[in-house]
Amino acid sequence: MSLRSALLSLLSAEPMSGYDLERVLNETSGYVWTAQSSQIYPTLRQMERDELIEAEERRTGDRTRRIYRLLDGGIAELRIWAAEPVAYGAERDVAHLKASLLTLLPLDQAESLFRAHLAHYRQRLMTWERRIEGIESGTSPILQARLRAAAPEYHDALIAFKLLSYEGSVIRARGEIEWAELGLARVKQLRDITELAPSTK
Amino acid sequence: MSLRSALLSLLSAEPMSGYDLERVLNETSGYVWTAQSSQIYPTLRQMERDELIEAEERRTGDRTRRIYRLLDGGIAELRIWAAEPVAYGAERDVAHLKASLLTLLPLDQAESLFRAHLAHYRQRLMTWERRIEGIESGTSPILQARLRAAAPEYHDALIAFKLLSYEGSVIRARGEIEWAELGLARVKQLRDITELAPSTK
Repeated sequence: MSLRSALLSLLSAEPMSGYDLERVLNETSGYVWTAQSSQIYPTLRQMERDELIEAEERRTGDRTRRIYRLLDGGIAELRIWAAEPVAYGAERDVAHLKASLLTLLPLDQAESLFRAHLAHYRQRLMTWERRIEGIESGTSPILQARLRAAAPEYHDALIAFKLLSYEGSVIRARGEIEWAELGLARVKQLRDITELAPSTK
Repeated sequence: MSLRSALLSLLSAEPMSGYDLERVLNETSGYVWTAQSSQIYPTLRQMERDELIEAEERRTGDRTRRIYRLLDGGIAELRIWAAEPVAYGAERDVAHLKASLLTLLPLDQAESLFRAHLAHYRQRLMTWERRIEGIESGTSPILQARLRAAAPEYHDALIAFKLLSYEGSVIRARGEIEWAELGLARVKQLRDITELAPSTK
């Protein structure tokens, strides 16, 4: 996903300032992009010139913020992006690849890899489950904004697909947890074999 | 994983020519790297200068091939790479992200995304399961090479970790299949709602 698609996607929920967009993109809770402001602002200006978005200046106190709003051209570009087939690569998870080289390391270090994997995906799982709860209970602010902007007949689909997006992340995180636990069990087996083998004593 | 680590990893199984390395890296069956020969050969030369690998010229018929062999320095670098903590990013799957935008598309196009996802990961699943069978039945040529090169006391660990690497891919593919099926079920539900709603007729 390009930064441009990510910005269009966020603005399709509601108008936001560059500052808001940067904050959401860099949230640790796991949006797809962690982008620098040095990238965000020039991209927004370019999107403005391309008539995908328009800015309105809004004063709060003594600050003036440019609030960006999606135009029809922006919705059209987002629709094209959504409809484009996913370019599936040959990529495999780096941790899965490292697993095949763990014979190079002492078992304690192998164990560390799986522990870190487990901790990382347990944390992710909690984040995604919290997002799903927010959608189901109707407290997700970004979903509320999307629902306000959409005609009622689209509400079921909006909720269904938004949930699906996070459910994909939940399934992924559960799988990685399963894999890390399998790895830890295998390290334990290998340790038992090593301890039982008289030749290695 | 850098191209350098990928090449070191392959050469840790057995000595290979640049041609062999390119073939394995570009196999459609899913190694991590699909690298161009324009990248592979200069990287091999650099690794030779860095004393990670050494080349031996071998004549077959009227062709001379340089066969690369891993040196101790190469094993040390590979060990460092394996021990390095995985740099987990905030990235999410592109298909999962697109799902949240599917309200922009007709349901038929939404369905296409899930069908493509299903077909892709069913194919991947078959590939990984075949690899696992090859390891379990002892017919995987690359594993045979690794076993020949390793002392017998490392054989259990070699097989265990090699299996684990592919099991990670199997778990991942199964999860994506589960998700795509959930997506298809949800499209069907939405279609039923739309067809039943009198207001949309």
